[in-house]
Amino acid sequence: MSSNGNTFGKSFCVTTFGESHGTALGCVIDGCPAGIKLTKEMIQKALDRRRPGASVTGEASASVTARKEADAVEILSGVFNDLTTGTPIALEVRNTSQHSGDYGNLDLTFRPGHADYTYDIKYNGCRDYRGGGRSSGRETLARVAAGAVAQEILKQKGISVTAYTIRAAGVSADKRDLSQIEENNLRAPDNEAAAEMNKKIEELRAAGDSAGGVIECLVTGCPVGLGEPVFEKLDAALAGAMLSIGAVKGFEIGDGFAAADSLGSQNNDSMHAENSKPCFDSNHAGGVLGGLSSGADIIFRVAVKPVPSIFKPQQTVCRTSDFDADGKAEYDSSELQIKGRHDVCLCPRIVPVVEAMTALVLADFILRDNNAR
Amino acid sequence: MSSNGNTFGKSFCVTTFGESHGTALGCVIDGCPAGIKLTKEMIQKALDRRRPGASVTGEASASVTARKEADAVEILSGVFNDLTTGTPIALEVRNTSQHSGDYGNLDLTFRPGHADYTYDIKYNGCRDYRGGGRSSGRETLARVAAGAVAQEILKQKGISVTAYTIRAAGVSADKRDLSQIEENNLRAPDNEAAAEMNKKIEELRAAGDSAGGVIECLVTGCPVGLGEPVFEKLDAALAGAMLSIGAVKGFEIGDGFAAADSLGSQNNDSMHAENSKPCFDSNHAGGVLGGLSSGADIIFRVAVKPVPSIFKPQQTVCRTSDFDADGKAEYDSSELQIKGRHDVCLCPRIVPVVEAMTALVLADFILRDNNAR
Amino acid sequence: MSSNGNTFGKSFCVTTFGESHGTALGCVIDGCPAGIKLTKEMIQKALDRRRPGASVTGEASASVTARKEADAVEILSGVFNDLTTGTPIALEVRNTSQHSGDYGNLDLTFRPGHADYTYDIKYNGCRDYRGGGRSSGRETLARVAAGAVAQEILKQKGISVTAYTIRAAGVSADKRDLSQIEENNLRAPDNEAAAEMNKKIEELRAAGDSAGGVIECLVTGCPVGLGEPVFEKLDAALAGAMLSIGAVKGFEIGDGFAAADSLGSQNNDSMHAENSKPCFDSNHAGGVLGGLSSGADIIFRVAVKPVPSIFKPQQTVCRTSDFDADGKAEYDSSELQIKGRHDVCLCPRIVPVVEAMTALVLADFILRDNNAR
Amino acid sequence: MSSNGNTFGKSFCVTTFGESHGTALGCVIDGCPAGIKLTKEMIQKALDRRRPGASVTGEASASVTARKEADAVEILSGVFNDLTTGTPIALEVRNTSQHSGDYGNLDLTFRPGHADYTYDIKYNGCRDYRGGGRSSGRETLARVAAGAVAQEILKQKGISVTAYTIRAAGVSADKRDLSQIEENNLRAPDNEAAAEMNKKIEELRAAGDSAGGVIECLVTGCPVGLGEPVFEKLDAALAGAMLSIGAVKGFEIGDGFAAADSLGSQNNDSMHAENSKPCFDSNHAGGVLGGLSSGADIIFRVAVKPVPSIFKPQQTVCRTSDFDADGKAEYDSSELQIKGRHDVCLCPRIVPVVEAMTALVLADFILRDNNAR
Repeated sequence: MSSNGNTFGKSFCVTTFGESHGTALGCVIDGCPAGIKLTKEMIQKALDRRRPGASVTGEASASVTARKEADAVEILSGVFNDLTTGTPIALEVRNTSQHSGDYGNLDLTFRPGHADYTYDIKYNGCRDYRGGGRSSGRETLARVAAGAVAQEILKQKGISVTAYTIRAAGVSADKRDLSQIEENNLRAPDNEAAAEMNKKIEELRAAGDSAGGVIECLVTGCPVGLGEPVFEKLDAALAGAMLSIGAVKGFEIGDGFAAADSLGSQNNDSMHAENSKPCFDSNHAGGVLGGLSSGADIIFRVAVKPVPSIFKPQQTVCRTSDFDADGKAEYDSSELQIKGRHDVCLCPRIVPVVEAMTALVLADFILRDNNAR
Repeated sequence: MSSNGNTFGKSFCVTTFGESHGTALGCVIDGCPAGIKLTKEMIQKALDRRRPGASVTGEASASVTARKEADAVEILSGVFNDLTTGTPIALEVRNTSQHSGDYGNLDLTFRPGHADYTYDIKYNGCRDYRGGGRSSGRETLARVAAGAVAQEILKQKGISVTAYTIRAAGVSADKRDLSQIEENNLRAPDNEAAAEMNKKIEELRAAGDSAGGVIECLVTGCPVGLGEPVFEKLDAALAGAMLSIGAVKGFEIGDGFAAADSLGSQNNDSMHAENSKPCFDSNHAGGVLGGLSSGADIIFRVAVKPVPSIFKPQQTVCRTSDFDADGKAEYDSSELQIKGRHDVCLCPRIVPVVEAMTALVLADFILRDNNAR
Repeated sequence: MSSNGNTFGKSFCVTTFGESHGTALGCVIDGCPAGIKLTKEMIQKALDRRRPGASVTGEASASVTARKEADAVEILSGVFNDLTTGTPIALEVRNTSQHSGDYGNLDLTFRPGHADYTYDIKYNGCRDYRGGGRSSGRETLARVAAGAVAQEILKQKGISVTAYTIRAAGVSADKRDLSQIEENNLRAPDNEAAAEMNKKIEELRAAGDSAGGVIECLVTGCPVGLGEPVFEKLDAALAGAMLSIGAVKGFEIGDGFAAADSLGSQNNDSMHAENSKPCFDSNHAGGVLGGLSSGADIIFRVAVKPVPSIFKPQQTVCRTSDFDADGKAEYDSSELQIKGRHDVCLCPRIVPVVEAMTALVLADFILRDNNAR
Repeated sequence: MSSNGNTFGKSFCVTTFGESHGTALGCVIDGCPAGIKLTKEMIQKALDRRRPGASVTGEASASVTARKEADAVEILSGVFNDLTTGTPIALEVRNTSQHSGDYGNLDLTFRPGHADYTYDIKYNGCRDYRGGGRSSGRETLARVAAGAVAQEILKQKGISVTAYTIRAAGVSADKRDLSQIEENNLRAPDNEAAAEMNKKIEELRAAGDSAGGVIECLVTGCPVGLGEPVFEKLDAALAGAMLSIGAVKGFEIGDGFAAADSLGSQNNDSMHAENSKPCFDSNHAGGVLGGLSSGADIIFRVAVKPVPSIFKPQQTVCRTSDFDADGKAEYDSSELQIKGRHDVCLCPRIVPVVEAMTALVLADFILRDNNAR
């Protein structure tokens, strides 16, 4: 059985590797142009922001897990004298803080809401079940590292990517004050709403339950014409990139699902010329027209499901036989009590992943079309 | 400037070509296994269902345009004695009913909500503006033709794909009676709701306006384990495929955006064993776990924006100079009055496209992983 | 069983389709930049040069078959007002002159030296055996059509590609007078040698036998730095492109196999500066260093095997059963007498194909690296 | 400027990274099936065979360099309990024995016959010049590591791949006694010829010069039908794979260039049936028909150029200015005296690389077509 899907992008190509409790995680970036300044510190900074328990306020984070891990990145290749050389950039983070014991009974018993059951079948039972193995959220570490490199390409073009939590545990942000994002541990653009979210999250933590939320992402400075027509529209690439993040269950751009209830006369973004330059009068489209960036801000949202690792007892199945030649096996019902350390709400940790994946999409399209303006 | 994006799939690879008012549209399918029965009639049937004005009730369709075109498909290669040969299958539909005159003034004046403005910049003004050219909805004809071939692969695996309109012009279907889908011209699984939708749509037509809606897609019979981990998750591929359809602005799978407000204890689909086989107790996930099909029904929804071609006068810009060496040009404000024939609500025509793209995604993953069960 | 391999290139992507005796052959080019002048006549001219029996001297060609076919190309998409639009360019040639009767007994009896036996197994007996079907030399028609488009990209960069026969039927060209290439029907850069080759070929034709030869290709004006390191070196891409031509059995660049017997002190191309510009003192490398073009002329050779369709009786096998579930079948010995029309030496017809494939390789690398100088 | 080309294969995908004197070299294999036994020792064994100075006879090797480096491989991911898990397998070798001082003057002075000059231009002067950086032969270490994994897939199919030196320094092997390959330090299938080769090589070493040679590769046990038609023929893929090895200047399969002088009646491999099974009467084709494996032994040869690093003084150029905005720079003539440790003849070290690349090609095609028999 062949298995792929670990490479992202066509010109800025990122291949990730690594399991939650294996020797190391990392990525190889093939296609980064030569001559870009890149240091270990630049990547480390992005990784630190993603880290479990990364405190954005200086206090302990309520929403996320307490696993303490240095996540120290090393650049193995592709950089010389702090400049990229156009050759593959290999980035590596060694795993140092595995508590494999926590997962000892999970080799044949499948956690609800996790990839355990489907991986077990796809790979004939050959999987590293510790901490979710390859399907662990820890895999996103490699994406964030690669995203940090992609961001350097975006910077040269004046493009900025900012994601933030706009809803968590049923509480919505009432404003979009981007200066507040890093001031609260939900990464919400609204400190008051964040405080309310945290309160709900603490209640859920006490109850052994978990919560989901919605993340919004804003891209400014994007030139007109990024994306490729038909199957690789910019919004199609963004949607695919977002749904490739483990806990994401939905994507919408611009007015999104609300556009379904709008009228054409409301939803069309009319234009006018100012000093002979074209301007949009509104941005219901979210910055993409016909699959190509329009020059307006790109704005989209993703739905994040509640953390599946909850501490309430759950009903599940365990596999009780090997797979036969046809790939069939036998199963029994089972009750499962998850242990260990787990987030209650993933939103603040997914925010940097959303930014990273967005940066990967944009950097790839930039390198595929130097003419975009 | 290089431009790609017209190929979909890695093992079952479909490359489409053609413009709305060019000589022909079509596709080449590379990777279809040998030995599958395939006739022109099988593909024509799918195309007829997609056709503008395709009457699903025997009456004139209220929601869609009146353009009458035979859309007769021809198989140019890859089939011998009604069996596929494993070589590229080229399918072609000649354009026969172009009314290019309707689009005469649109070469430099850009229709709001359309790809005109972004294509004009990306391609330095070299574009076939007639009927939207390559960005026309007519391009989906090639997808539906390819989807008809993919469906034959799915049939062999016992997989069925059914899409239907669940909301249009602000009216929702109250039930999911799939037997009613082809009984009304909205392709809704609820004849009464469809009648209500049609009424709203006729009002909008009279007002020169347009409407959007929501399409749901249900996949049954899918084996466990389809999809590839990390970047090519099944739901990521579906999301990308759906957003590649022109008018689609959102995608959600399973509970989707509602999952953001759910608790882990609610959203996790618990399991139990029945006769030693694993069963899910619910399907909040929508049939995908960790990016791989779980064996449960796959269910997702897409948001369709209102048709941008409305008959109310619209404010826009026209380009008044050639592009300079830096790709800059000058623009003037302009008022636009769209003429010709246009849909009021795209949902019923997009239903077959959603099915086709879903079939392309699934056929591709099946061929990439023969072991999936 | 999945089957691919019909697409060439990553930025300038060409997908070919069609069988020798099917409805049509052609290709779709995805990735051609917008704004390039392209007319049907430009492509037709290249196809006419490739055509069986194309007379380069005004006389009947001795070396090639007499099949008369107009091979009229049609542009289906991607060109508007004689300019490319950046969207897929579909090119099509209808088959009009099939003599399927000539191949009536070849469905289960396999011609030695042809792909019949291997295709029959790979595709479980589902193949269009008429005229070799997909494995026919006629498939190269689509390559030549695509090559004609690629040549327009090369022209803009000042790159020229010229191939010619330097050996056929055991006779070598003694000189490289490129002006004589189109003056003789072997496409040799030496009219006298060509006359000698023709004489040998006529003898072989009379004997019902066939001959091979060697084609050389010279690329001038190539900027420094084309190609990609490691697996996609320029010479690796050229080698792969050349061996993808049916009858080609060998490839060498620069001194090629002779370099194996050379010394480092002989084989290294030393350099010096002239007016502050770098110059090579020799070109043993054939214009490629480390897989990247060096700015020197690119020069390589391909070995062409003798035409396998000979008129002497041949020993072969025929399949006498269907394939079983394991893909096994039964075979009998058989004697085969090939009929119909066939080339005696393929070299002059492969010359345009070598040029086309070289143009496809170079155009693709140019679009993948705009910085090459 | 975008730069790629560091990934090989479509289903068994290998991405390599690393420079000669960087932190580490290695690869990520995406697409290895789950359930294959794999240990560090299995890969280390292959690497040890490739190592500079690897003594195949227990004595010091005359032909290759004396650089001593452990080249200890580490498996970072994709293997659990000594079984592959279907997830990316990352392999890493840390560089430990760099003598960067040897290369101190080579940042702007370009070694003849090396990639220095072309890389310098392609990457705007941003390159790790130490030891050739990315273009060093040391990069093949990652290929050999990946090849060791691919070999495990071939073993399951009963396929064996054996390469050996058949000519070096002008001396040819007279026989093909494969049992002698590992008995002499040229890896020739003829101990007497190897002794003669070594003698010539020692003379060249004394003279500060170097030699090339020819390597042959024999694949047995290959099922019928491997390869993909048209552009990804098995022989095309092998040719591309071989020319991707730094010092290789030519490739021929079966009779290769000799076929150019053969007649059709000689070159065609006739067949007959034995016990209802098809058999070939000869193997001029080298095991490939129409780009697909025929079931006969696959046999091909590659031409290896003499080592470009010689100790005789050489004329070259050095870059004396930075690149301007158009990528132009100024150069001066220069004389170069190479120092350090260098092979005299690369053949014995390239033998494992030829095997590795062959294994990568075959494993990829196997995974792309499970039906091949």
